[in-house]
Amino acid sequence: MEPIGRKRWAIAEGYIPAQSSFSDRTLISHETACILNPGGREAHVDITIFFSDREPIGPYRVTVAPRRTLHLRFNDLTQPAVVPRDTDYSSVFESDVPIIVQHTRLDSRHAEVSLLSTTAYADG
Amino acid sequence: MEPIGRKRWAIAEGYIPAQSSFSDRTLISHETACILNPGGREAHVDITIFFSDREPIGPYRVTVAPRRTLHLRFNDLTQPAVVPRDTDYSSVFESDVPIIVQHTRLDSRHAEVSLLSTTAYADG
Amino acid sequence: MEPIGRKRWAIAEGYIPAQSSFSDRTLISHETACILNPGGREAHVDITIFFSDREPIGPYRVTVAPRRTLHLRFNDLTQPAVVPRDTDYSSVFESDVPIIVQHTRLDSRHAEVSLLSTTAYADG
Amino acid sequence: MEPIGRKRWAIAEGYIPAQSSFSDRTLISHETACILNPGGREAHVDITIFFSDREPIGPYRVTVAPRRTLHLRFNDLTQPAVVPRDTDYSSVFESDVPIIVQHTRLDSRHAEVSLLSTTAYADG
Repeated sequence: MEPIGRKRWAIAEGYIPAQSSFSDRTLISHETACILNPGGREAHVDITIFFSDREPIGPYRVTVAPRRTLHLRFNDLTQPAVVPRDTDYSSVFESDVPIIVQHTRLDSRHAEVSLLSTTAYADG
Repeated sequence: MEPIGRKRWAIAEGYIPAQSSFSDRTLISHETACILNPGGREAHVDITIFFSDREPIGPYRVTVAPRRTLHLRFNDLTQPAVVPRDTDYSSVFESDVPIIVQHTRLDSRHAEVSLLSTTAYADG
Repeated sequence: MEPIGRKRWAIAEGYIPAQSSFSDRTLISHETACILNPGGREAHVDITIFFSDREPIGPYRVTVAPRRTLHLRFNDLTQPAVVPRDTDYSSVFESDVPIIVQHTRLDSRHAEVSLLSTTAYADG
Repeated sequence: MEPIGRKRWAIAEGYIPAQSSFSDRTLISHETACILNPGGREAHVDITIFFSDREPIGPYRVTVAPRRTLHLRFNDLTQPAVVPRDTDYSSVFESDVPIIVQHTRLDSRHAEVSLLSTTAYADG
């Protein structure tokens, strides 16, 4: 497959609700960055998290194997720091090879499930 | 109509819930790639499905007639293999003529319907 | 304001549920194309609706005054023909001046409200 | 970090429901423009709100500090005028440095929460 994707992406929206109506991992309130690496080389992705009232945290470092997808939960990020709940944030992704990034939230603060998703902003 | 669209598209998010609250086809949990072929020639579209832990599957081959839309459910893909449920995936679309691709999920794991949608990533 | 926007847009997803849980106009199941004309000249927009199994219908002709937005419900289109309910469709927008198009569905087939939205595909 | 983002953005959809099922600020029906300023200089952002039947209002002036995100609720805008509820609008963002803008609505007109989100239209 010819190269497809971009190296720099941004998601301006970010908010992980602390509350959930379910204990099942699939239905706990979460935000995800779906990262597709369609090419033949491993992707090294540096993620920076921005806040409204403090310095950014990062880089969070993830690798995505060639021809693989990683549906990365912001809830699961721990190094260099946990992403705080009930807190506004944004994120920027910088990869050494072309990738595609899509943003999703599953929100189960109340008894039903709400979803949002958007292709992230691709720069350059 | 002048040509409109692109030949290569990607959707980084993919997840078909196995569970549904309804048996009606329109309300069963599903993911759709809406593919518009606005031009005068038949579109031959090769779809590759990427996973987190195994080699990609594909190509799935679909054709979209000239001046027609195809709302393709990933649930319905069977050749070369069914798309597994409750499994993270991504998809790439390669067409021989310009098309437009939009991604939608209808999620009815619980008693209500949740929706997400985004214009896919257009490459090149 | 300097010109902002594009002249050609496409929305691959289209589906107006026939069913609604509410009779209030704001909560009846509907799909909307939000069309912003930020510039100083009237926008003449031709809309073509594409289907899966029949020839496209159009053009639907709408005008958007200078510095105005039009949140156009596909439900309300009648000339040259009503947009059928419970039917897959797509749409293409061609304007004589730059505009911005965003797609939204409010789905109230069941007792709650579900929403989806995406910036449409901008061509050229 | 190298500059990422664009200076001009538009959101064609806009609608703040007057009704909410909750009194908690996080769950009151609202629309948000998430604005990320990833660079090293303060962003001065002028926002213009467009309507269907009257002249635009603006500029609303906001600043986003370097390396910060601002999740700006349209509900909170008061100068030069409050954004009316239950009213169709659109918005345009003009910044002196590159930013990224994403649009979100949380709709709690009924007892559950519905969400929509999309990366805004980036111009130029």
